[in-house]
Amino acid sequence: MSHAQTIDIQSQQDMEFIDITEQVRDFVRACRCQEGMLLVFTPHTTAGVTINENADPDVRHDIGEFFKRRLSNQDYFRHSEGNSPAHILSSLVSASEALIIENGQLLLGTWQGIFFCEFDGPRRRRVHLKIIPG
Amino acid sequence: MSHAQTIDIQSQQDMEFIDITEQVRDFVRACRCQEGMLLVFTPHTTAGVTINENADPDVRHDIGEFFKRRLSNQDYFRHSEGNSPAHILSSLVSASEALIIENGQLLLGTWQGIFFCEFDGPRRRRVHLKIIPG
Amino acid sequence: MSHAQTIDIQSQQDMEFIDITEQVRDFVRACRCQEGMLLVFTPHTTAGVTINENADPDVRHDIGEFFKRRLSNQDYFRHSEGNSPAHILSSLVSASEALIIENGQLLLGTWQGIFFCEFDGPRRRRVHLKIIPG
Repeated sequence: MSHAQTIDIQSQQDMEFIDITEQVRDFVRACRCQEGMLLVFTPHTTAGVTINENADPDVRHDIGEFFKRRLSNQDYFRHSEGNSPAHILSSLVSASEALIIENGQLLLGTWQGIFFCEFDGPRRRRVHLKIIPG
Repeated sequence: MSHAQTIDIQSQQDMEFIDITEQVRDFVRACRCQEGMLLVFTPHTTAGVTINENADPDVRHDIGEFFKRRLSNQDYFRHSEGNSPAHILSSLVSASEALIIENGQLLLGTWQGIFFCEFDGPRRRRVHLKIIPG
Repeated sequence: MSHAQTIDIQSQQDMEFIDITEQVRDFVRACRCQEGMLLVFTPHTTAGVTINENADPDVRHDIGEFFKRRLSNQDYFRHSEGNSPAHILSSLVSASEALIIENGQLLLGTWQGIFFCEFDGPRRRRVHLKIIPG
């Protein structure tokens, strides 16, 4: 079993937090890695990866609404595609998350889920997963 | 010596930056790992881990005060626990930091310290440490 | 070939995004590591490392201008060096980025580049690179 995998995602909205926790857990199980580190990395510059609560969907609503209102387009922006807020969010939230694998399981808190963050959708997107045993 | 450890933390304030640098250094020394990577990961969705100056405590004051003023509760927030600003900060600051181990030591800059970030305290919290040799 | 290297940087402006993608790619090739993880880490508390678009320089302009306008000095700041906005940005953007190495190459998206972020320049700076094979 390879220690790398790519997840394909089709986002539906301009800003969206897509829960990929189960897909990531399945990958960790399939790898049969007992101890190590996992990197979740998205190769896009207007998207990101974050860890946050996956119990109450209102948390995602509030984060997204806050980002939309605080990062609207500005007169001084020059980038002609008009998606500079999405690029800024990509640098703030970052393109990746690193996680610990312990006893063959992802070490996540009770309320933690892993989210692909769409900041300029809808688009077809990818997320790369990579395990380093150790 | 195992390459994993958990630190228990009791935060005292609603927002607080708790310096865990010495505990992390002690763990790296005890592991006797000469070269590798260290992941510092907190399993909470209203907290984070960051690296910043640990010389002048005014730096922490300014960061915390800025976060409090810019991330207050908003009318459009729906999450009933009332701690959406803490969730937003958790995604912005992120739940983890990755560091380099070189010659058996943490490779930190002169002014860098590692901080557990409480965004919704006071609470009992944990931070997981994991070393990947290599 | 060692799996670690340090890049020296001389920033020219107060805020600046310096593209280090080619230097990082050269390091990965020279290491002849086929599969693994790369950590790009800066040991400074008023700087950062980010991944964003390296095609249109206007993206960098917009990110920098947004940061400057939203993170100016505040009356309530106490840190006497007057660079608290740079410290805040360092925690928001973070001191490091982790990347995947696959088939001996950095796994970067088409538009992604790796940037050293100067938030309090001009200064002499360093960026540490470290590969964990696996």
